[in-house]
Amino acid sequence: MHSLIVLAHPEPRSFNGHLRDVAAATLGALGHAVEHSDLCAMGFDPVEGPRHYRSRGLPERFDAQTEQRHAAERRLLPADVQGEIAKLERARFLLLQFPMWWFSVPAVLKGWFDRVLVYGGLYSSTMRYDKGYFRGRRAMLSVTTGGPEPTFAHNGRNGDIELLLWPTHMTLSYMGYTVLPPFVAYEVGGGIQYSEVDEGTRRNQAYARALEARLRPLDLVEPLKFNGWVDWDERGRLRPGVPGHSPFMRAEP
Amino acid sequence: MHSLIVLAHPEPRSFNGHLRDVAAATLGALGHAVEHSDLCAMGFDPVEGPRHYRSRGLPERFDAQTEQRHAAERRLLPADVQGEIAKLERARFLLLQFPMWWFSVPAVLKGWFDRVLVYGGLYSSTMRYDKGYFRGRRAMLSVTTGGPEPTFAHNGRNGDIELLLWPTHMTLSYMGYTVLPPFVAYEVGGGIQYSEVDEGTRRNQAYARALEARLRPLDLVEPLKFNGWVDWDERGRLRPGVPGHSPFMRAEP
Repeated sequence: MHSLIVLAHPEPRSFNGHLRDVAAATLGALGHAVEHSDLCAMGFDPVEGPRHYRSRGLPERFDAQTEQRHAAERRLLPADVQGEIAKLERARFLLLQFPMWWFSVPAVLKGWFDRVLVYGGLYSSTMRYDKGYFRGRRAMLSVTTGGPEPTFAHNGRNGDIELLLWPTHMTLSYMGYTVLPPFVAYEVGGGIQYSEVDEGTRRNQAYARALEARLRPLDLVEPLKFNGWVDWDERGRLRPGVPGHSPFMRAEP
Repeated sequence: MHSLIVLAHPEPRSFNGHLRDVAAATLGALGHAVEHSDLCAMGFDPVEGPRHYRSRGLPERFDAQTEQRHAAERRLLPADVQGEIAKLERARFLLLQFPMWWFSVPAVLKGWFDRVLVYGGLYSSTMRYDKGYFRGRRAMLSVTTGGPEPTFAHNGRNGDIELLLWPTHMTLSYMGYTVLPPFVAYEVGGGIQYSEVDEGTRRNQAYARALEARLRPLDLVEPLKFNGWVDWDERGRLRPGVPGHSPFMRAEP
């Protein structure tokens, strides 16, 4: 069993780095062969653009999907993208470890989606959602926030964490992954508060133990529910009477 | 009246580039002095990290907020960040033009938030939301999508566009901006479909005209509603009886 842990934080000695280490040790003890993508340490370039493509499908005007498909079909994808895809191909479990910055993932992780999840290679109009390339594999977010937990609850100042994470969960589900509920460590990061957590306080240890406890029974965790092709009509809308599983779908207009 | 248009697309000859030009011409005709940040053309580096900071507040371990505050207080912010902040200081209206990639903004724009919206300079625990630095100024998203409009409607396959854009709207609101309803051009981008739109078809022209029509009565547009400090209790939760304005808040748990 292979796993891939993607870390999107500029400092390996951060609490995010620590949670990455805890996850690696826990998965290792479960018998996983754990691979890593420490995106900042790798100097991963998150900006999709023409400089990544030697041979162009449409030389006169850069279109990301056109060039991704062109390169994927000719096995001319950028070397860093090929390396990431090789890790994804081996991994039965994918863990994304990141701090919530501006209600979303850090840019380096967003660009890992933009560049590595290749159109024409890893997804297409007929290969996505429950027909996605990585169907049968599991993925999970492990997130830290600066704000306290109540502000990310329903009717909290920062918005419901489940809904803030949904675009990232949708990305994983679009690729075919079975998505496990996220692990969230609240109120870490930023100055003194952060140092207290990092220096081995009770909260740090409690979150680290909680992540271990979440990862140990990995095969038993009930995944999040998503709708699939059978649920949608020809316009891509939920058929009448079909329950909507995404929080976006549950929300009344 | 100054405006700033931020473009986050690798190709100036794209439909996103065209909409940027339409917006600039429309705002120019309204008498605005229009400034630009073409992030990909500028080679903007969206990855926050230690290499951007000459003098460090916490040399032994990189913490983004600690270094942003340290640099902001000593006027040692990175030159590219200083340049972007100077444009934001001048702009009474901010327009972000981008394609929706993976249910969110492209990495280069996400990193513009991560690096330019500086802790200790442009926001702090007491300077955010309706007490934010840019209060009194207006901001708006102009977005293109690859998928068709019905898939981004309530109960659509891709999720409600209003909710997918909310993390970005929250970012603007957190900074104090008055946020106008977004302009969305659906089903552009990606291969042939994209070319048809780009080559001056009816849809292209219709969307360009629609953006003009949206921008012309800029001062009359009713903004989106957000809750503010007076609405929240000491834990950051909506007070009983206060109507929740964000779609996240309206959504029942």
